[in-house]
Amino acid sequence: MKKKKKVGIIGGAGYTGGETIRLLLNHPDVELSFVQSRSQAGKYLHSIHEDLVGDTTLKFSKDNSLDVDVIFLCLGHGESSTYLNENKIPEKIKIIDLSQDNRIEGGHSFVYGLPELNKQRIQDANRIANPGCFATAIQLGLLPLASEGLLSSIHTTAITGSTGAGRQLQDTTHFSWRSNNISAYKTHTHQHLAEINQSLKSLQSSFHGSLYFIPWRGDFTRGIFVSSTLPFQGDLKSAYTLYRHYYKDHPFTSVSEAMINLKQVVNTNKCLIHIELINDQIVIHSAIDNLIKGASGQAVQNMNLMLGLDETSGLKLKAVAL
Amino acid sequence: MKKKKKVGIIGGAGYTGGETIRLLLNHPDVELSFVQSRSQAGKYLHSIHEDLVGDTTLKFSKDNSLDVDVIFLCLGHGESSTYLNENKIPEKIKIIDLSQDNRIEGGHSFVYGLPELNKQRIQDANRIANPGCFATAIQLGLLPLASEGLLSSIHTTAITGSTGAGRQLQDTTHFSWRSNNISAYKTHTHQHLAEINQSLKSLQSSFHGSLYFIPWRGDFTRGIFVSSTLPFQGDLKSAYTLYRHYYKDHPFTSVSEAMINLKQVVNTNKCLIHIELINDQIVIHSAIDNLIKGASGQAVQNMNLMLGLDETSGLKLKAVAL
Amino acid sequence: MKKKKKVGIIGGAGYTGGETIRLLLNHPDVELSFVQSRSQAGKYLHSIHEDLVGDTTLKFSKDNSLDVDVIFLCLGHGESSTYLNENKIPEKIKIIDLSQDNRIEGGHSFVYGLPELNKQRIQDANRIANPGCFATAIQLGLLPLASEGLLSSIHTTAITGSTGAGRQLQDTTHFSWRSNNISAYKTHTHQHLAEINQSLKSLQSSFHGSLYFIPWRGDFTRGIFVSSTLPFQGDLKSAYTLYRHYYKDHPFTSVSEAMINLKQVVNTNKCLIHIELINDQIVIHSAIDNLIKGASGQAVQNMNLMLGLDETSGLKLKAVAL
Amino acid sequence: MKKKKKVGIIGGAGYTGGETIRLLLNHPDVELSFVQSRSQAGKYLHSIHEDLVGDTTLKFSKDNSLDVDVIFLCLGHGESSTYLNENKIPEKIKIIDLSQDNRIEGGHSFVYGLPELNKQRIQDANRIANPGCFATAIQLGLLPLASEGLLSSIHTTAITGSTGAGRQLQDTTHFSWRSNNISAYKTHTHQHLAEINQSLKSLQSSFHGSLYFIPWRGDFTRGIFVSSTLPFQGDLKSAYTLYRHYYKDHPFTSVSEAMINLKQVVNTNKCLIHIELINDQIVIHSAIDNLIKGASGQAVQNMNLMLGLDETSGLKLKAVAL
Repeated sequence: MKKKKKVGIIGGAGYTGGETIRLLLNHPDVELSFVQSRSQAGKYLHSIHEDLVGDTTLKFSKDNSLDVDVIFLCLGHGESSTYLNENKIPEKIKIIDLSQDNRIEGGHSFVYGLPELNKQRIQDANRIANPGCFATAIQLGLLPLASEGLLSSIHTTAITGSTGAGRQLQDTTHFSWRSNNISAYKTHTHQHLAEINQSLKSLQSSFHGSLYFIPWRGDFTRGIFVSSTLPFQGDLKSAYTLYRHYYKDHPFTSVSEAMINLKQVVNTNKCLIHIELINDQIVIHSAIDNLIKGASGQAVQNMNLMLGLDETSGLKLKAVAL
Repeated sequence: MKKKKKVGIIGGAGYTGGETIRLLLNHPDVELSFVQSRSQAGKYLHSIHEDLVGDTTLKFSKDNSLDVDVIFLCLGHGESSTYLNENKIPEKIKIIDLSQDNRIEGGHSFVYGLPELNKQRIQDANRIANPGCFATAIQLGLLPLASEGLLSSIHTTAITGSTGAGRQLQDTTHFSWRSNNISAYKTHTHQHLAEINQSLKSLQSSFHGSLYFIPWRGDFTRGIFVSSTLPFQGDLKSAYTLYRHYYKDHPFTSVSEAMINLKQVVNTNKCLIHIELINDQIVIHSAIDNLIKGASGQAVQNMNLMLGLDETSGLKLKAVAL
Repeated sequence: MKKKKKVGIIGGAGYTGGETIRLLLNHPDVELSFVQSRSQAGKYLHSIHEDLVGDTTLKFSKDNSLDVDVIFLCLGHGESSTYLNENKIPEKIKIIDLSQDNRIEGGHSFVYGLPELNKQRIQDANRIANPGCFATAIQLGLLPLASEGLLSSIHTTAITGSTGAGRQLQDTTHFSWRSNNISAYKTHTHQHLAEINQSLKSLQSSFHGSLYFIPWRGDFTRGIFVSSTLPFQGDLKSAYTLYRHYYKDHPFTSVSEAMINLKQVVNTNKCLIHIELINDQIVIHSAIDNLIKGASGQAVQNMNLMLGLDETSGLKLKAVAL
Repeated sequence: MKKKKKVGIIGGAGYTGGETIRLLLNHPDVELSFVQSRSQAGKYLHSIHEDLVGDTTLKFSKDNSLDVDVIFLCLGHGESSTYLNENKIPEKIKIIDLSQDNRIEGGHSFVYGLPELNKQRIQDANRIANPGCFATAIQLGLLPLASEGLLSSIHTTAITGSTGAGRQLQDTTHFSWRSNNISAYKTHTHQHLAEINQSLKSLQSSFHGSLYFIPWRGDFTRGIFVSSTLPFQGDLKSAYTLYRHYYKDHPFTSVSEAMINLKQVVNTNKCLIHIELINDQIVIHSAIDNLIKGASGQAVQNMNLMLGLDETSGLKLKAVAL
């Protein structure tokens, strides 16, 4: 029997921390050594992540151990950089940073951890910047077109669940406000645009970032559903062929000829894509679970790749489905 | 044309404040003179109660005027008493206090404002303590039995919407937690038990308060649904006759021979009651909108009674229904 | 006191029938004479529209009376035409058809009943084709631009509540499927495009219908939220001036400088609009309640205009808000 | 490596069929040989259970094979008996019947498959009648008391998600009706009372079935939350000791000293229990996922026990949690 790798989590009290814990506790090839949290140190994990009652008696630690193979940084934006400045992590410990601090490449050694774009580089990396949730869902809808240089002006609307806004209490995550409600925010200015453009340009250097992105807040907790529209010359069959070819070696991203819906992917690491062609425009619908393929699941997928494990190890998750 | 009465609101920024504003703005017989809020003074009402955009250009005031006929106190529990101590309101101005501060009678001149129990006293009163939401829904299910001395040991389960917890941000009103969730709280210790027992004993002096009350938090915003079970000797027909007779002069409380559901009453001032008889036990289901019949609507109903207006004036509300 | 007008409803058992009943029962200037339903004839209205318990003892009729001033046709698409062929309604009885059968003008005397486009014609009409729900929400976001000839290629995403799909049972309105779910349907092919294009061309003859419309199904019951994006040369201030000027005589459509959300309009006849300008594109967000401003409320608004009543009579509705 | 056992499903198109498929596809010790469905034969599993896109290319079969070790009957109530009459299944093939047809023991060889009551008998059985969802949640809250002969008159209220009503379209599972709604049904007459009483009497022969059970329909898809109240003499500590002792060898049922909520167990095979003591009454709250511990998960747990596998094999499921 292969010896299990040891992993630790920095910042384990938030939503991505909780999801990462859930995935790692059930992962067959790794052992969760510590979960650090400044705010919750000393408390049981299940006092904060209440579903873990009966699953683990681990407590949040104040400090991190360096006797691990992988560290996940589940910290807020900005806090990862601070943490890495204040704590020198040896090169031999792999780091997966779920914040946005290192997603724009250059000036550091972090690789942008979108396996459908960078699988080989991830396998060779010691430092991974895990993509944003909207960024993952939107890119997976566009990468095949970019790979063929087919992107032009793109109109994207995407709706996200409330967990995307994190655990902290806010007016826009108050149940009485959010329930049965829809709203828009950060029109064309969402912070994920930078990493999306970076990826698209890496495949299609002629792309100049005319991606008009309207994010909506949805009245559900988990998931992102995206519809992107752009000019397209080919026929529907060629589009499906292109997408199927692009994703043939990627176990979590599937192309569906039937229309997709969000709950097909909720509580899984999957991305589903459906394509339509109307007149001169292609419409690409894509869906993910924002906390899994959009955060913690993709982080574990990156870990699997970095450690040479099966890419799907610990990630064959039962969909909530209903 | 009759001159409109002038009314004002103290503490207009919370949920019951907002509902009271909505009802009074559309009320044909009154004019909303001021809405006071310490925290929001100077801002437009619609900056806090966003649905009022286009309906009113009134702003929150810092102080209250005394040039009104009625003042509604939409303050937190404890704050009403403080306000009344610090502000001497002339006797000729009627006060309706939506807090729980004056619901237990004695030592003050407030009348408990449940029209189905105290209509005559309310009509003669200058000071009203408006009932609690759970208290309203539970009492309306039990008053007819109490009026005949038929209460004994009662088991009550009741579920409430998130608006019952108010506007402040709390872990249990975070959308990501509350959505699709059910939980229990304050089992047998809910603060409304005192006013319920007061009312039941006023009708049935032999009742000793053995009401086992389990409140649940529901994953919806508006409404309370109650099922109470207790021993009963008679037949179903006699029970319906008793309830119909008791409520015959009360326009907002109706008895339904068909099973009821919560959305029949959401966004209305109605209470619906359905009765079942199984073996030796009677089960009474009752439903209200916690913010309307359970708070602001009942407050307006009390105002109508105190001012000699039609009891239903301004309260014929379109149900949300769907 | 002015004598109340008599009104009747054909096809009163569905959702738009129910909403029309709710509005007309509370309308101060009309009297609901009959509600016809072939499927439910003889039953109480409240046996189907359960919230009406305690409000009315009217029953569904098998036939319609002609002793009325206005008839509302709340029939399915195609059924209105059949009904009108089989039942000759005298010219003096005004007809408001909520189906899509007569929305495309020509070959009949129906006027397209969008007051913000056709108020004068509606006031003079005897036959009204009431607009579709998506069509209303999208048009109200675009009419001011069309009035100045400023439309070019438009990308629109809009999400609708489940009531848009009607009362009949379908897989996509099964609670277990729809809850917490998002999906797309009828991309660029929705049946409302025809009436939208008709209206836009009536104001801007150069517009050639390049409106790319992606409808989504939302996991809520009521409301439509729309974001439309298109090229725009001016500045934000001029856009707001244009919209405010266009809607200055229209009591139900308001322009908000604060971002809007769906629940501001749920259970009201209002449309709210918010505008953003990013680089060379204008984004218009608009929101309505699909059953009210998108159906029955607009029908009553049209009735008010045809009868010479105050346009807002019976339509000052309490928002659900929370 | 141990050879995987072969399993098949009869009636795989419904909700419990779908959940059983999801669990068995990811189960490390078994291989899903066939999924029979009369209505869907020939179609891909993922055409009905849409989340399975990308997971399996298996199709529904018309007939069942007998070359399996275990057959799950995911048929409607009454249909299991018919199926078993028409298809003689050899004794060596184990059968797990998820319908209610064989839950009342006597006249057949089926063992009531509640592991927390009957683990030894299940391990030795060839035929299992899998418990009902309400029945599981309620019994797990009461078994420890019954084991000590402490049951007397019990008042139980329990709320269930919409999936409990199955896939077929019904008025009470229409999204527009069920959303934000609560209602009661089958008061004191629910069909699960028979199996609950059977179990309770098996542990406490003096119990005479005075369990007053009020089922509610909730506005969520998954889960059951129960509160049961009954007289109790002891103190809280002794109650917790009793419950902990009773469940010490049962990996899926845990006792929590913190108040529980439904989402702690959604999408898991767990049951959580919390106990309160008020005056002379004990209140037991319990929660399960109706489709997993209340149906398909418990069926797999029973299979594990019958096959001598680890009881938790394939059942360490990631909670949806948020």
